[in-house]
Amino acid sequence: MTVSYADVAVGTALPAQTFPVTRFHLVRYAGASGDFNPIHWNEKFATSVGLPDVIAHGMFTMAEAARVVTDWVGDPGALKEFSVRFTRPVPVPNDDQGSQIAVSGEITELLDDRRVKVTLTATHADQKVLGNAVAIVQLA
Amino acid sequence: MTVSYADVAVGTALPAQTFPVTRFHLVRYAGASGDFNPIHWNEKFATSVGLPDVIAHGMFTMAEAARVVTDWVGDPGALKEFSVRFTRPVPVPNDDQGSQIAVSGEITELLDDRRVKVTLTATHADQKVLGNAVAIVQLA
Repeated sequence: MTVSYADVAVGTALPAQTFPVTRFHLVRYAGASGDFNPIHWNEKFATSVGLPDVIAHGMFTMAEAARVVTDWVGDPGALKEFSVRFTRPVPVPNDDQGSQIAVSGEITELLDDRRVKVTLTATHADQKVLGNAVAIVQLA
Repeated sequence: MTVSYADVAVGTALPAQTFPVTRFHLVRYAGASGDFNPIHWNEKFATSVGLPDVIAHGMFTMAEAARVVTDWVGDPGALKEFSVRFTRPVPVPNDDQGSQIAVSGEITELLDDRRVKVTLTATHADQKVLGNAVAIVQLA
């Protein structure tokens, strides 16, 4: 499945997704990424440095936002450029539900060579956690 | 440990790091990120779609590049913005050594509010795998 440049326009929405993030996710992400900073798994440490709770790795949030693009376009190689501002951390409570990261996106510009600019919105508890989240995507 | 704006200049180099990436890393990253695309763990599938081998998740490479910044500055919250271009995939052979992603960085601009622009270079086998990799970092 690929998305054709001919089938999209400025304003075309990508299918939104909501990603759960629990302490269990963060421990796995620590092991996978090699980033074992205790703010991502040790509540006592996190609060001692002024955080409200354990927080998600910013790169985890960024990766979930990218998935909305790659799941839509059907080819991870189509994601050519990706940039974000880390505006707010995602606190992750110590329960089975954890937190939810809601990601939506829409095409905000048609570029040359069948590429498009996608602007993403990622929120937790209705507050933006990423700012200026922009993906440049190669369409078919 | 934090880095002071007063102690840096354009040209200041960040400590370079080399990150191994094996099939084992990619399986763990798949589980942590939720991105189970078989191009990242199934050689038969990867080659069937024209890739040279299983390739690393682009977001894994991007995350390792970010670590050179956060390990240097000592505070993951200091990474304010991050953008990359995905220029070339990192193939990951099926052996214990896997591949190596070498990441270096240097300050390329002094910004206001004690922020700096860091330009990162990420290579595999002496070829750039990320282009225009730029981090905006808040110093003390």
